Amino acid sequence: MRATVLHGPRDVRVEDRPDPTVEQPTDAIIRLAAACVCGSDLWPYRGADAVSEPAPMGHEYVGVVEEVGSDVRTVKPGQFVVGTFFASDNTCEICRAGYQTHCVNRQPGCTGSQAQYTRVPLADGTLVATPGQPDADLIPSLLTASDVLGTGWFAADAAQAGPGRTVAVVGDGAVGLLGVLAARQLGAERVIAMSRHADRQKLALDFGATDIVTERGGEGVARIKDLTGGLGAHSVIEAVGTQESMLQAIRATRAGGHVGFVGVSHDVSLPGRELFYSGVHLHGGPAPVRRFLPELIDLITSRTIDPGKVFDLTLPLEQAAEAYRAMDERRAVKVLLQP
Amino acid sequence: MRATVLHGPRDVRVEDRPDPTVEQPTDAIIRLAAACVCGSDLWPYRGADAVSEPAPMGHEYVGVVEEVGSDVRTVKPGQFVVGTFFASDNTCEICRAGYQTHCVNRQPGCTGSQAQYTRVPLADGTLVATPGQPDADLIPSLLTASDVLGTGWFAADAAQAGPGRTVAVVGDGAVGLLGVLAARQLGAERVIAMSRHADRQKLALDFGATDIVTERGGEGVARIKDLTGGLGAHSVIEAVGTQESMLQAIRATRAGGHVGFVGVSHDVSLPGRELFYSGVHLHGGPAPVRRFLPELIDLITSRTIDPGKVFDLTLPLEQAAEAYRAMDERRAVKVLLQP
Repeated sequence: MRATVLHGPRDVRVEDRPDPTVEQPTDAIIRLAAACVCGSDLWPYRGADAVSEPAPMGHEYVGVVEEVGSDVRTVKPGQFVVGTFFASDNTCEICRAGYQTHCVNRQPGCTGSQAQYTRVPLADGTLVATPGQPDADLIPSLLTASDVLGTGWFAADAAQAGPGRTVAVVGDGAVGLLGVLAARQLGAERVIAMSRHADRQKLALDFGATDIVTERGGEGVARIKDLTGGLGAHSVIEAVGTQESMLQAIRATRAGGHVGFVGVSHDVSLPGRELFYSGVHLHGGPAPVRRFLPELIDLITSRTIDPGKVFDLTLPLEQAAEAYRAMDERRAVKVLLQP
Repeated sequence: MRATVLHGPRDVRVEDRPDPTVEQPTDAIIRLAAACVCGSDLWPYRGADAVSEPAPMGHEYVGVVEEVGSDVRTVKPGQFVVGTFFASDNTCEICRAGYQTHCVNRQPGCTGSQAQYTRVPLADGTLVATPGQPDADLIPSLLTASDVLGTGWFAADAAQAGPGRTVAVVGDGAVGLLGVLAARQLGAERVIAMSRHADRQKLALDFGATDIVTERGGEGVARIKDLTGGLGAHSVIEAVGTQESMLQAIRATRAGGHVGFVGVSHDVSLPGRELFYSGVHLHGGPAPVRRFLPELIDLITSRTIDPGKVFDLTLPLEQAAEAYRAMDERRAVKVLLQP
């Protein structure tokens, strides 16, 4: 099959690799209907995370089940499925509490999904089938459910976005933008997107943002306070993962409010005294997307939400290198790859 | 009147000071029925917090209203009241959300309570009257409601202690011990007190601890995991405020679990990446004791709980210096002062 492999910083190649096969009786093989590049793929692409050997890329996936191991019960060949970036058994105590990303049997969610095929471990716990074969135009939205929508949703949930609440969103990447969508869908009264890019501002407004704040850092915090009677937002979604963005999120939250942080933490060290006196709730981490998948699939297939709009560039799989470049240079918010 | 003043590190004196008077129409003057020394008073006592000028000490108080300003409506002279260490209006949006410690009109709760009299600002929002004059033997317990019980209760609430949950408590000072009581009262199934001191272990067991762990740091975390099927506690109360205790608390909590931290943060810097991958909820800070006061007074006056047992030494106010020494040297868990 053809698959995307990262050989080193900025060295993405699409090359021939062996077709994946069932290795464990709990595995499934998926023929990918669509793939995409994640903001977190840019960390190793840029050399910020070390790449010690050629790495098959991609962890977001939708597609048709090609084959299953002998122990797989809940999905079968021919079904269209959405999976998540961690494989989980979905039966342990941690999974049942909704934290499948911390499943006691957790494994990487697939063997690389910027490819024609991928192998998914713990298929029963990890994959959710759609009701029948989805219309082709729903596939981008279903793909977002695999990670960026699920992550934005978790952030909104962790930030307790809901009726009567004002939500601020730090970060205008795909996760932040879908955090806007999630916050509105969860009933938030007001959603303030923090963005200085016209194309992303437009998407934020499409997804339901009621206000745009272009300032960052201390000035951004001051603007959020201005917009909230001096108190700060009830809920803040942090979708970047830097020291500046985390402090911006904490400082933009009112005492007793909630910060949902999902930007993969890279250089963050939180000052304890400031956190103590802030009085905020802090929750986040790798999103347990599996918890939300059934609901997200339902919202997408019923055409209640249209998160697929976050893909502003579509390329054939063979042009994966250009997909990485476009996202790295911020020419695209998120790129869909057609296998 | 006689009042306790800190002049410098380890220099506590009881001396004559002017009686406090009503300065604002929202003030009340309280004749103290009992006072006490707080663990947090030991920071300036030990020189860890700077003392730039002689400081009247004490922020925990119960007593009888002596006089009120012209705007005070909810308490009147002769009533027995319990107050909190921050004065709050209890009407602003932040107060109504239960975060009176962050009231937009917040002030210090009193002008020093290790004394015969103290002035309390924003009396309507800050003070709660007991139903009639309490029996003398209830006064120590009512005094704990003013801070250490209220703080332990907030920590247990922030850690979501409740039915079916296992709670671990880091810190065996008065707040940690009353966190044990709070967790049990909130319905926790199992409460693990972390303590290596026999007298505090006994109090923890009296307050409802089901298990004692004497190990600290990494070994303490390993013991908590052993006791919880390898997963960690659902809820962890942090009542120390150091880097070691915060990391111990976070690491002893299962993914998706809750850390309630109330130890005043002194040298803490939380590693973002570890916090991200921990998947815990973090909430804490200065406890909004006022939120819980009516319920705590009810539990005490109905003799449902007996938090006053945390006082293991009682001294006349004149011996305040000895009270500080006893707590500094850990000869006493908490000292009650009789004005």
